[in-house]
Amino acid sequence: MSSVASAAKLSAAPSLTADTVRAARARIQGQVVVTPIVFSEALSATTKAKVYLKLEHLQHTGAFKARGALAKISTLSDAQKKAGVIAMSAGNHAQGVAFHAGRLGIPATIVMPKGTPFVKIRKTRDYGAMVLLEGESLVDAADFAAKMAAEKGITFIHPYDDPDVIAGQGTIGFEMLEAVPELDTIVVPIGGGGLISGVALAAKALKPSIDIIGVEPELYPSMSNALQGRNRPCGGATIAEGIAVQTAGATSVPIVRENVRTVVTVSETSLERAIAMLATKGKMVSEGAGAAPLATLLEYPDMFEGKTVGLLVSGGNVDARMLSSVLMRDLVRERQVLTLNIEMPDKPGQLHAVSGICAEEGANVLEVIHSRFALDLSARSARLGITIETRDEDHAKQVMDRIRMSGFKLSLRDPNEE
Amino acid sequence: MSSVASAAKLSAAPSLTADTVRAARARIQGQVVVTPIVFSEALSATTKAKVYLKLEHLQHTGAFKARGALAKISTLSDAQKKAGVIAMSAGNHAQGVAFHAGRLGIPATIVMPKGTPFVKIRKTRDYGAMVLLEGESLVDAADFAAKMAAEKGITFIHPYDDPDVIAGQGTIGFEMLEAVPELDTIVVPIGGGGLISGVALAAKALKPSIDIIGVEPELYPSMSNALQGRNRPCGGATIAEGIAVQTAGATSVPIVRENVRTVVTVSETSLERAIAMLATKGKMVSEGAGAAPLATLLEYPDMFEGKTVGLLVSGGNVDARMLSSVLMRDLVRERQVLTLNIEMPDKPGQLHAVSGICAEEGANVLEVIHSRFALDLSARSARLGITIETRDEDHAKQVMDRIRMSGFKLSLRDPNEE
Repeated sequence: MSSVASAAKLSAAPSLTADTVRAARARIQGQVVVTPIVFSEALSATTKAKVYLKLEHLQHTGAFKARGALAKISTLSDAQKKAGVIAMSAGNHAQGVAFHAGRLGIPATIVMPKGTPFVKIRKTRDYGAMVLLEGESLVDAADFAAKMAAEKGITFIHPYDDPDVIAGQGTIGFEMLEAVPELDTIVVPIGGGGLISGVALAAKALKPSIDIIGVEPELYPSMSNALQGRNRPCGGATIAEGIAVQTAGATSVPIVRENVRTVVTVSETSLERAIAMLATKGKMVSEGAGAAPLATLLEYPDMFEGKTVGLLVSGGNVDARMLSSVLMRDLVRERQVLTLNIEMPDKPGQLHAVSGICAEEGANVLEVIHSRFALDLSARSARLGITIETRDEDHAKQVMDRIRMSGFKLSLRDPNEE
Repeated sequence: MSSVASAAKLSAAPSLTADTVRAARARIQGQVVVTPIVFSEALSATTKAKVYLKLEHLQHTGAFKARGALAKISTLSDAQKKAGVIAMSAGNHAQGVAFHAGRLGIPATIVMPKGTPFVKIRKTRDYGAMVLLEGESLVDAADFAAKMAAEKGITFIHPYDDPDVIAGQGTIGFEMLEAVPELDTIVVPIGGGGLISGVALAAKALKPSIDIIGVEPELYPSMSNALQGRNRPCGGATIAEGIAVQTAGATSVPIVRENVRTVVTVSETSLERAIAMLATKGKMVSEGAGAAPLATLLEYPDMFEGKTVGLLVSGGNVDARMLSSVLMRDLVRERQVLTLNIEMPDKPGQLHAVSGICAEEGANVLEVIHSRFALDLSARSARLGITIETRDEDHAKQVMDRIRMSGFKLSLRDPNEE
């Protein structure tokens, strides 16, 4: 991938300015969704900022990538369009390229690494692209795609390290500030850095005083590394897979250095909390990367106190089971769902006594598991694992106190240790 | 409640027209959110219609009720405002009234039936309202509120059976058609009928050819009953609790009869599917009532074929655990999550054999339960309940076939029988 990145940098980076973004905007106008930006009362009440959400997860294919893909495609000559395009991605970039190529009748090949979940393959095929499974990793797949592009004379569309792609993605910056000129700060997720580069160029051109803040997952601090000349490891399972990038884009690094106030990292816990909060308070379904800007507000509240902040919700392609699980995990984190281990004599009526307390206290019972194999108890005792739903931590304490007062030995199961 | 309803009808219903809605719009302008309306590519691809979503769940307090509450409040004299307002609701109407009264410094009393979940009480109190818990049912609580209003000389704000409330809610109709004049059809949830009455008056005034379609939960066909002179029972636990209304509003019935093309009912299954689909494809978090219009498209697809349809997503106040559960239940319904009962000899290595097949086939194991109490099996056999995640029904069949070919007796647990 690095050879492609360098080539892009040498050939076009010096000329990448807000005018490049303006030109891209003119080319893609009418073919991308001008997504809404909305004020969120509930998120503003929770954080100390005035929070606006740019709903870019309502873009074609559910993510901002569709803008960059089209901005690139729209630079191609008729001959180049006829020859076709190729891209490497197992995610939003794949769908963005496939969608616009399919719509415009341009042959598209998408290379994905072997083992890519079938759902992602099918979504991309459904837009009319040919999907090739090549290479064991994203880097292998990218190398394959770059080689195939060179051999067959078809245009390679890089997910972020290409000035035209960056310019297309940057059109979001114009839209945000035109709709809400009073924004003080825009928070943007960083994977390779294409999105934030474009947005920063556009936003700074309209309002030089605006602060652009970038956010990366703690597990993938690749842009922070590039800016600070450090070499922290990038790897591991993040819920923000859309911005799990090992190496920042060469085109983006100097633009970010010049135009972005700071780049922060957020924990997996903050990312999860942000996905859940966007759903419950923002009423939006977002993927991990799309929730990263809200995670920044949660993890660094003081940075945003009193500010008018635009959060770029970059994409909404999250798996239904993952979303379901994140919502439940958030209730567990907030102690609204908790499991109590209760030691009880192994005789009739015990469960009835406990369930009676839960009923009187208005705690909803979700699951009951009896364990009779616990060797730390006598053979005449059993351990009941009862999972209940409470209003909040105070309510939970109240229920636990009443169960203890009825003579049961009780402990709260620590969800961090399961 | 019926006495209040009749009073409202006699005093003002005859004058309720599109101009009443226009006047309400002028009064509330700048104090309610002009919510976005967006085209949904993914929902349009799934149904046979061009689907637009009116994102009224992004309204203040997360539901359209805030419009009607303010429209009523804005008719009050200074003396009436000083005396205060009272309403009966355990849901969105409570929050709508409390929000605007609180913001405008008007004393607000909200009556909720005893046993109302604490979360709903707290949300309403957080807006500055006084919450009274009175009566065993919604009807009792409403009677109490109406009496208290009369005794204390404070203004009762009915959730739907009031011309000013209806007019405020109807402003959504103007917004939808002004933003997307090509709409052929608007689908609106019906509880008491206030929302659809207002929307129909406004929309028909702008575009007389438009079809307005109303939707009720199968369990609460109160408007259908009123229109057809029938008396089907209204009751039971519906996921669309916001539109679980026993008796249609007297003001609304004649307006609906004249302006609404048809009123349909949808099943609980359709409502659940619609909530899940709004989340996964529409990227929106909606409550049951808000998803009812999409449920209509799912249950009556032919009615909408080729049409440009506006779905009024009326509210987004769904409990996180409910949303989580609906998403999982949808995966079970689509056979993407399924539980296999596998009969196996009670000896080492059996689970390993089954889990190996799942691994090779790319089926993710979510839960394993061993049952040794199944008397239909010999004491030397055990039953394994294994819950797996597959790509789709075909993939599920493939996994099951391979397990059977390895010599295990297998049955699919029917999720409708659990």
